[in-house]
Amino acid sequence: MVGGGPGAFIGDVHRMASRLDGQIELVCGSFSSSPEKSKITGRELFLPEDRVYDTFQEMIEKEKELPEGERMDCVSIVTPNHLHFLPAKLALENGFHVICDKPLTRTLEEAEELERLVEETGLILALTHTYTGYPMVKQARDMVKNGDIGTVRKVYVEYPQGWMTEKIEETDSKQASWRIDPSKSGIAGAMGDIGTHAENLAEYITGQRISELCADLDTVVEGRVLDDDGSVLLRMDGGATGVLTASQVAAGEENSLSIRVYGTKAGLEWHQMEPNSLYVKWLDKPMEVYRTGVGDLYDSATAHTRVPAGHPEGYLEAFGNLYRNFAKCIQARLQGEEPDEQYQDFPTVSDGVRGMKFLYKVVESGKSTQKWTSFDD
Amino acid sequence: MVGGGPGAFIGDVHRMASRLDGQIELVCGSFSSSPEKSKITGRELFLPEDRVYDTFQEMIEKEKELPEGERMDCVSIVTPNHLHFLPAKLALENGFHVICDKPLTRTLEEAEELERLVEETGLILALTHTYTGYPMVKQARDMVKNGDIGTVRKVYVEYPQGWMTEKIEETDSKQASWRIDPSKSGIAGAMGDIGTHAENLAEYITGQRISELCADLDTVVEGRVLDDDGSVLLRMDGGATGVLTASQVAAGEENSLSIRVYGTKAGLEWHQMEPNSLYVKWLDKPMEVYRTGVGDLYDSATAHTRVPAGHPEGYLEAFGNLYRNFAKCIQARLQGEEPDEQYQDFPTVSDGVRGMKFLYKVVESGKSTQKWTSFDD
Amino acid sequence: MVGGGPGAFIGDVHRMASRLDGQIELVCGSFSSSPEKSKITGRELFLPEDRVYDTFQEMIEKEKELPEGERMDCVSIVTPNHLHFLPAKLALENGFHVICDKPLTRTLEEAEELERLVEETGLILALTHTYTGYPMVKQARDMVKNGDIGTVRKVYVEYPQGWMTEKIEETDSKQASWRIDPSKSGIAGAMGDIGTHAENLAEYITGQRISELCADLDTVVEGRVLDDDGSVLLRMDGGATGVLTASQVAAGEENSLSIRVYGTKAGLEWHQMEPNSLYVKWLDKPMEVYRTGVGDLYDSATAHTRVPAGHPEGYLEAFGNLYRNFAKCIQARLQGEEPDEQYQDFPTVSDGVRGMKFLYKVVESGKSTQKWTSFDD
Amino acid sequence: MVGGGPGAFIGDVHRMASRLDGQIELVCGSFSSSPEKSKITGRELFLPEDRVYDTFQEMIEKEKELPEGERMDCVSIVTPNHLHFLPAKLALENGFHVICDKPLTRTLEEAEELERLVEETGLILALTHTYTGYPMVKQARDMVKNGDIGTVRKVYVEYPQGWMTEKIEETDSKQASWRIDPSKSGIAGAMGDIGTHAENLAEYITGQRISELCADLDTVVEGRVLDDDGSVLLRMDGGATGVLTASQVAAGEENSLSIRVYGTKAGLEWHQMEPNSLYVKWLDKPMEVYRTGVGDLYDSATAHTRVPAGHPEGYLEAFGNLYRNFAKCIQARLQGEEPDEQYQDFPTVSDGVRGMKFLYKVVESGKSTQKWTSFDD
Repeated sequence: MVGGGPGAFIGDVHRMASRLDGQIELVCGSFSSSPEKSKITGRELFLPEDRVYDTFQEMIEKEKELPEGERMDCVSIVTPNHLHFLPAKLALENGFHVICDKPLTRTLEEAEELERLVEETGLILALTHTYTGYPMVKQARDMVKNGDIGTVRKVYVEYPQGWMTEKIEETDSKQASWRIDPSKSGIAGAMGDIGTHAENLAEYITGQRISELCADLDTVVEGRVLDDDGSVLLRMDGGATGVLTASQVAAGEENSLSIRVYGTKAGLEWHQMEPNSLYVKWLDKPMEVYRTGVGDLYDSATAHTRVPAGHPEGYLEAFGNLYRNFAKCIQARLQGEEPDEQYQDFPTVSDGVRGMKFLYKVVESGKSTQKWTSFDD
Repeated sequence: MVGGGPGAFIGDVHRMASRLDGQIELVCGSFSSSPEKSKITGRELFLPEDRVYDTFQEMIEKEKELPEGERMDCVSIVTPNHLHFLPAKLALENGFHVICDKPLTRTLEEAEELERLVEETGLILALTHTYTGYPMVKQARDMVKNGDIGTVRKVYVEYPQGWMTEKIEETDSKQASWRIDPSKSGIAGAMGDIGTHAENLAEYITGQRISELCADLDTVVEGRVLDDDGSVLLRMDGGATGVLTASQVAAGEENSLSIRVYGTKAGLEWHQMEPNSLYVKWLDKPMEVYRTGVGDLYDSATAHTRVPAGHPEGYLEAFGNLYRNFAKCIQARLQGEEPDEQYQDFPTVSDGVRGMKFLYKVVESGKSTQKWTSFDD
Repeated sequence: MVGGGPGAFIGDVHRMASRLDGQIELVCGSFSSSPEKSKITGRELFLPEDRVYDTFQEMIEKEKELPEGERMDCVSIVTPNHLHFLPAKLALENGFHVICDKPLTRTLEEAEELERLVEETGLILALTHTYTGYPMVKQARDMVKNGDIGTVRKVYVEYPQGWMTEKIEETDSKQASWRIDPSKSGIAGAMGDIGTHAENLAEYITGQRISELCADLDTVVEGRVLDDDGSVLLRMDGGATGVLTASQVAAGEENSLSIRVYGTKAGLEWHQMEPNSLYVKWLDKPMEVYRTGVGDLYDSATAHTRVPAGHPEGYLEAFGNLYRNFAKCIQARLQGEEPDEQYQDFPTVSDGVRGMKFLYKVVESGKSTQKWTSFDD
Repeated sequence: MVGGGPGAFIGDVHRMASRLDGQIELVCGSFSSSPEKSKITGRELFLPEDRVYDTFQEMIEKEKELPEGERMDCVSIVTPNHLHFLPAKLALENGFHVICDKPLTRTLEEAEELERLVEETGLILALTHTYTGYPMVKQARDMVKNGDIGTVRKVYVEYPQGWMTEKIEETDSKQASWRIDPSKSGIAGAMGDIGTHAENLAEYITGQRISELCADLDTVVEGRVLDDDGSVLLRMDGGATGVLTASQVAAGEENSLSIRVYGTKAGLEWHQMEPNSLYVKWLDKPMEVYRTGVGDLYDSATAHTRVPAGHPEGYLEAFGNLYRNFAKCIQARLQGEEPDEQYQDFPTVSDGVRGMKFLYKVVESGKSTQKWTSFDD
């Protein structure tokens, strides 16, 4: 693991998620730019001292020298955005699979370079767009894919958070401070942090891709450089239209990602904060509430469920599904087998490149006086 | 009453709403363009035959001749959009107050003419934007006005319906057929029918007015002339930004108007389909759920509540609030008194003009390749 | 109308409910034991002075002398419990139909006497157990009746309110003061006020009748004489078992009547505070949410719905359904016709007698050390 | 680990929960009464073959011989009820801490014997009443303890499930078959499986203990020996009264444990299926919704939360909290330290004995014709 030292939030999330199914064992790490802090984290994690490294370069070099079966199989990257690219690149170049937090990199060029590296090496790069790991998101995707709701016409996806309503970067929030800094975050703020999740979710469920967009990006809190809020009109390549909103100044909102998709036969509604329900609104019969573990769901939903109905599964379970699938694919690779189809269902380097492109296009549109910006130019 | 004969939906709604508080009595009507049908409706309403008229012109003429105290005090207009203007004009010209369904007219010019007439005559014209009649909408408006949620930065208002998902105008839906016909509806479809409600609600609660907009209007179902779906980016004159969506092809949705408003201190959320709850999301304390009739609400909320907490009030009660207020203002006028401040709280001809302007601007923007269209040009 | 003078809550509710559908006109009243107050209310209701009476005796006597077509057709009784019996009796004896608030009387004997009178006179007595007037309650009843959920095995009905948590009878609450007074309320407090609603609802929906019960009645707030809280184990004559709870000291609850009924095939759940949803939980397929006005409902639900789906109907509409049906039955009677089957669906004197018996049995069981008390002994 | 071989559900749950925080490592096991099956599970768990044992006796004996630091520190027992006692006893007698599924044993005598053993040995025995592991349950308990809702007067706790509505024990449900068998389950069915959870939760939150009860136990599905449904009137030693229901024939219910507690100042409501919300209903101000991770919660809630607000934590996280606390207490013990107060918050052998006593008393009351059965006789 690269990153995830003291004070980091997402590193712990990755560790808990990776442990859940017992398919991945954390064996080494470079947890902080400070060797001291890295060591502290290593001890807390019961790691042997000689596998807690000062730098990710050292980690990759030393691990590579260890005998097969003993050395790490993959690298998990949980650093701020600007520190994704170098360790990912080095890991791939040295034969290690990678699982990386989103957005993939700080610039589109870096993302594309990683995509080339993945192609060349044949290694696996998983991107932790967590929200597609939920069983009811899988169910929604497959209901669309199988035509259960007819042709998709509309998609509304929204991601309001409230934690940056006030200028918390002036207090001691480690989270806030790097996220508002373009040299660390990249060209986008809220759109990069949460907008890409919304984009990924909308394309995942609808099976359609954004073809044109019209963005209104906003820096609501004075003194910030990057957007902390934005709304985007969407046109999708399958004919649907929609709206994507992402805001980190929606006072009082926790982490309220939700999506509604309307087809010619029915509408779907899903809320991340109550992730085990999927509302299916039919044209002329009662709404149905699909629930994790209840009734006759698609295999994809079932394959990503751990406990019986009514025992709520949450964010870490969804996150764990990405790690489990990533691990199972590596295991299959090690054994020369084709992994189960369900295990192949996780975001990859292509999603990462697409997310970066989305950010570039949103920022371009945000500055334009023209209504529509083509996604693919 | 003008309109509201057999097969009409909104006429009955107006009648029920007007009866609720016993402040208005239906004394005469011209319920249909067919005198036969008008008579049938008159009989069902226990009206004397001589006060069921063949035309609204006849009604206004004859009623005017009746002695004061016996003749009608006001005219309620519940016809399709294109038939609002003439009866409203005639009523005002002959000294009758008017309460009219929305949108006010078919064209902006007509709306402006009515506005001039209201100014000249000093008569009252109420417009039935029902949704501002709910107690929790009043509460929201006053919380914003009093700064309880700080300065408003964001507003999301949405109005999805699903009843026009299929081409029901080809079956026998009286409702659908006139609404999709520009000669009856005007220049907008869904935006006119429900988008104006959303616009009115957003401006009512935020106290800010739309200053610029960017619209994507869509005719989803083939063969239709007018929009059945649209999304609009908003910029408000108080600095807020937002999104307004209105769709009648959102499969499976009933009448799901809802609004979220975020200020610097808190966010508000209200859903028309569960109208007695107002969610107040504070920055750093638990969300509160304000409820009709519970605790210490603003006078405006209390003044529009009839029954104790937990006895749900619905659409007809909200509608009834408009009629009650309208009636109370007429009564005060008759008695030479100033009506209670709470009774003066209903949409007027100005809201009607503004609604029409909104439609013109949305349609203009929908056709434009420029991102932003100024509201006030 | 008898009762409903200044300060009363339920009188106004009856009046609004009766007006809603324009089938009943209030023509006279004796609104208060104080003739002065009665006159004030009469004026507020725009009644002619000569039809505002000092006593209900005077009202019934004088109205009877008026010519048919002019005199009142029925009497609405909205007084506290102990003042139901005499006006109801006198009305029936003089040929007037009666609609009366619940519980029917103060004692079982009185209730039975009214039942005899109704039988003898053939007149109609409607009892305003409002909650069976909701469309989704009708739907639930008919789903049970038609076997949609299989044989009913369990029923949980609960009615928590919080308004008597503190000793509000010591402040100025007119509502509270008579309700805690046995000379006015009868032998039961909370059970009489709201427990009978729960009993009526449970028997109405399940189609089963309580055959045995085991009650724990409680006077939680010191100084009260009657119960303000109680829980009752139920055994029904169709084999179901269940629990009924009623409390007026459930701090913070508004008026949260709800019921769940489980059959061999599915469970039903309905909440009075969100009355337009009926949750149908199937054994092995997704839960369905039946909604007022949506899809293919039973005729009974449709016949008690006024506005299209998504326009919420509330308490007054449910109450209005009782008045509408009562009025339609009287109209049919006047015209020598059989009323429509749907109009015959309202609580009658038999429900009133049953409610009184329930109270007696609950109180008897509450005092008993034996577990089960038979309902029919 | 004892139990948790192929086909078992709860074994996997224990393993996932124990892994989540990286404080416990599964080092050995006897997963099935069939050595073959035990080996299969061992391999799936990447355990060395020599630490997968044929019997729990063998496991305890062999592990004990291993050097400290290498041998297991504790035993996790996840077998059906009748197989809890012997391994727990043997583990305690040989110096191992124990974490055991509920109910603690098959008979009260066995439970009491374990209690004595715990006292004698000073070892830790944790009981997995999972539901007290949720942050919002901790918050509720501390709000009661600190008087935030005043003196508790009422408690309603209910636990409806629907999975035994049909006679699934006749199909191949391994879960159902042992649960309905008194020789494996003990004297109670649904009450043992889920009723004890409800009892534990109610006493945990209210801080009051059941002093008297009146039970109606029912075997709804023909052919069963043990109860599959029951309702219990409660009297608590702090003066509160209440109702506890548990049913496994509530068709369509998943795992819908919920509790409401009413004090003199406010009411609390919590639902296991949406565990991150705690509804606090105040007497005369708006209801508040406390949420995991939001605002100023009690330390106990915060100490059992892993991820930021709006990232839902579920059943496995609550379960993990028990394992984490259990592990932290063992670690402290190993280091001769006093564990953090928050870590000491998990159900112990005393809760287990109390649960068994509850079952005995419920069954006794169920057979009695007397209304009340004293808990402490």
